[in-house]
Amino acid sequence: MSLTDYLLEAQERQLKELLELLKIPSISSSSKHQADMEQAAKYLADNLKAAGLSAEIMETNGHPIVYGEYNLHPDATTVLVYGHYDVQPPDPLELWDSPPFEPVVKDGVIIARGASDDKGQVFVHIKGAEALLATTGKLPVNLKFLIEGEEEIGSPSLSAFIKKNRKLLAADIVVISDGAMLAPETPTITYGLKGLAYIEVQVRSAAMDLHSGAFGGGVPNSINGLASMIAKLHDEQGRVAVPGFYDDVMEISTAEREAFTRVSFDEKDFATEIGVSATPGEAGYSLLERLWARPTLDVNGIGGGFQGEGAKTVIAAKAMAKISCRLVPNQDPDDISEKLGRYLKEIAPAGLEVTVKDLHGGQPAITPLESPAVQAAAKALRTVYGKEVIFARTGGTIPVVSDFQRLLDADVVLIGLGLETDRIHSPNEKFDLINYYRGVRVSAELLGALANGN
Amino acid sequence: MSLTDYLLEAQERQLKELLELLKIPSISSSSKHQADMEQAAKYLADNLKAAGLSAEIMETNGHPIVYGEYNLHPDATTVLVYGHYDVQPPDPLELWDSPPFEPVVKDGVIIARGASDDKGQVFVHIKGAEALLATTGKLPVNLKFLIEGEEEIGSPSLSAFIKKNRKLLAADIVVISDGAMLAPETPTITYGLKGLAYIEVQVRSAAMDLHSGAFGGGVPNSINGLASMIAKLHDEQGRVAVPGFYDDVMEISTAEREAFTRVSFDEKDFATEIGVSATPGEAGYSLLERLWARPTLDVNGIGGGFQGEGAKTVIAAKAMAKISCRLVPNQDPDDISEKLGRYLKEIAPAGLEVTVKDLHGGQPAITPLESPAVQAAAKALRTVYGKEVIFARTGGTIPVVSDFQRLLDADVVLIGLGLETDRIHSPNEKFDLINYYRGVRVSAELLGALANGN
Repeated sequence: MSLTDYLLEAQERQLKELLELLKIPSISSSSKHQADMEQAAKYLADNLKAAGLSAEIMETNGHPIVYGEYNLHPDATTVLVYGHYDVQPPDPLELWDSPPFEPVVKDGVIIARGASDDKGQVFVHIKGAEALLATTGKLPVNLKFLIEGEEEIGSPSLSAFIKKNRKLLAADIVVISDGAMLAPETPTITYGLKGLAYIEVQVRSAAMDLHSGAFGGGVPNSINGLASMIAKLHDEQGRVAVPGFYDDVMEISTAEREAFTRVSFDEKDFATEIGVSATPGEAGYSLLERLWARPTLDVNGIGGGFQGEGAKTVIAAKAMAKISCRLVPNQDPDDISEKLGRYLKEIAPAGLEVTVKDLHGGQPAITPLESPAVQAAAKALRTVYGKEVIFARTGGTIPVVSDFQRLLDADVVLIGLGLETDRIHSPNEKFDLINYYRGVRVSAELLGALANGN
Repeated sequence: MSLTDYLLEAQERQLKELLELLKIPSISSSSKHQADMEQAAKYLADNLKAAGLSAEIMETNGHPIVYGEYNLHPDATTVLVYGHYDVQPPDPLELWDSPPFEPVVKDGVIIARGASDDKGQVFVHIKGAEALLATTGKLPVNLKFLIEGEEEIGSPSLSAFIKKNRKLLAADIVVISDGAMLAPETPTITYGLKGLAYIEVQVRSAAMDLHSGAFGGGVPNSINGLASMIAKLHDEQGRVAVPGFYDDVMEISTAEREAFTRVSFDEKDFATEIGVSATPGEAGYSLLERLWARPTLDVNGIGGGFQGEGAKTVIAAKAMAKISCRLVPNQDPDDISEKLGRYLKEIAPAGLEVTVKDLHGGQPAITPLESPAVQAAAKALRTVYGKEVIFARTGGTIPVVSDFQRLLDADVVLIGLGLETDRIHSPNEKFDLINYYRGVRVSAELLGALANGN
């Protein structure tokens, strides 16, 4: 039987099987749902087995991880699919048109908590493997599943789990479907994420707050001083002025620049939607290039002195700012935090004592456009959608991606199968039927394409 | 009888009379002390009458004002003495060595709430007039007293009272003793106070807070923008960079500069006491000149974005700063607020919407060094102390001083008769006996000196 025929025949059953999963209120943030978590994990393991993979439920310090495996041959390409079976709490319940854990299929969409984020999108890959196995008798790759139950609470157990099970999880390529395509009917591969360096800087100018009348004009002012330091973090061209900041930056390749221009991205719509009247940034780069592929620096918070209502004539002894940088390969968070901290101390005006605290970081990640993973994913998407694929990067940081890259040395591709309008984390979360069905097919085609690349 | 003989003979009685005043717990902030307020006002009126003046208690919306008057001749110089009979609450009571309203005289000091601030210092002038009248049969000037009962709660009734009673209060010279000399045994005349212009600036960069990963590099940042604006408020020379800021500044005269150099002011002690490691400011002026006689600008508070513990990757849509300027004659608070606000709007980076709110202002005040008021006060202090007088200005703003200047068109001199170490507003407030006795003599000599100047 052809894949097309199989999928057509299996369509109704595969939908019902997803709806069963969506009925389980696997809310990871509430201990009340412990049994639901276990039930969801077991349901996924059962589906993996039914598809023809082995599966087991592995304990962590938190919610269990579902691990699935299909072994073709030790030398074959190994693909690891990552996803999560836990969901956000459905509150506020009164804003749902139907109960969040009683899935409704209406007007071509599935409405339920978790439909898009991420039960629907991870289920796609189980059903894709099932279809390929059923129609060809075997998979063309070694396939692994890692489905966690703690993504919505920050994946507290995941990093340690990957480290501990490096051998078990060893893979050439990691596929993640836990996001959205850039626009409807726009097959999208995200191949790069920014990293993060985040510091807090505290300045002190005196032993105590001082009266601005008695001392103004004769003492350093912590707030004025901090502001002058922040003003020196960018130059006139909108570039980050921290010495060495760009040293390790991987420049945007010609192929990427060219690919970015093919992205349907309306700068005016972008500005209107968030209510900004300008889109300033680093000179010499388009808005999209800046958002996706250039490192940035933003102050995330500032505080000092009197912030209440009215007036208080104080010269504050202390002020602080939280400053973070989004990084691109091959910038290193620790290196950037260190350079930023050193620079801040250098440019501090006389009389300011500067303390810098490194708050946290995340590695940037990129999978080269020409890698087999990206090329295979593009081929699969082209086959299913019948159109060109958008290659995207994002300014966001997903720690698990750099974990996969660093700990498993794997290429990671993110294939968002949902839409930005899927209302994830909100009432009436949805997943379009067409995106579910197409996703299953993309998954099956992807495994074939990855095998070819071997 | 000579003034010296009279004062020697009257010394014990005049001390007892002050102690009686200090026994009255005239705490203006507590309604429990209504009767005490009235008793203190009556006691002062009685003392004015006993000295040979007419006196009355005038109602306000709050605590009554004691008004005293001696008329020599319509063409004679008219001197108005301002002071207050209310005191700060004495809490914490357990830190007093003796009950705050049971005055103790010990080791040459009077210990009681209000001893220095301001009962002792205003009483000096009643007793000085008494002495002069008793020894010469008449005063050489028209003399008025305005003693309010609400200074410690911000003088809510005073400004309206002065406006309403302009004719009654009309004076050439206002004398205020409600402060401290610069150091012990250092007769000090304060002849200039700074004014104040205080604004709040709010900036907005987007309709909502934005994710720093998804939007960093493509949108304006309210905090970075505000910091860059603040950094432009001073130039490299430490001068305020607001256009027109210095237009109306009265330059420090050669005589003043010269007088400032005679002030015993140790810059190192100044820095050590408040824990500053530098004393930056406007180039071309000494520290004391900047503190006393140059206009300044300080940010008093700033806030925006995430100020909690840890890290939040947000680009804040809004930030605000409170900014104030201390002004010197002839700068005008409204004019400076307007110029500052306009400049902030001019220098705002693209994409920032700037709103400026004028919070409040206060006029600067100065009485020329060569004015009869200052010269007479200096003469009186020289006579009593037998040494040169320090002419001081201060960076502080006392609204009543500019009220007297503007509403009465009077020259104001501040003659602080207490010490910085008098523990005003604190437990064990004190007033040195020698400062009380000398003060009475200074007051009598001052009236004589002012007459000579006529």
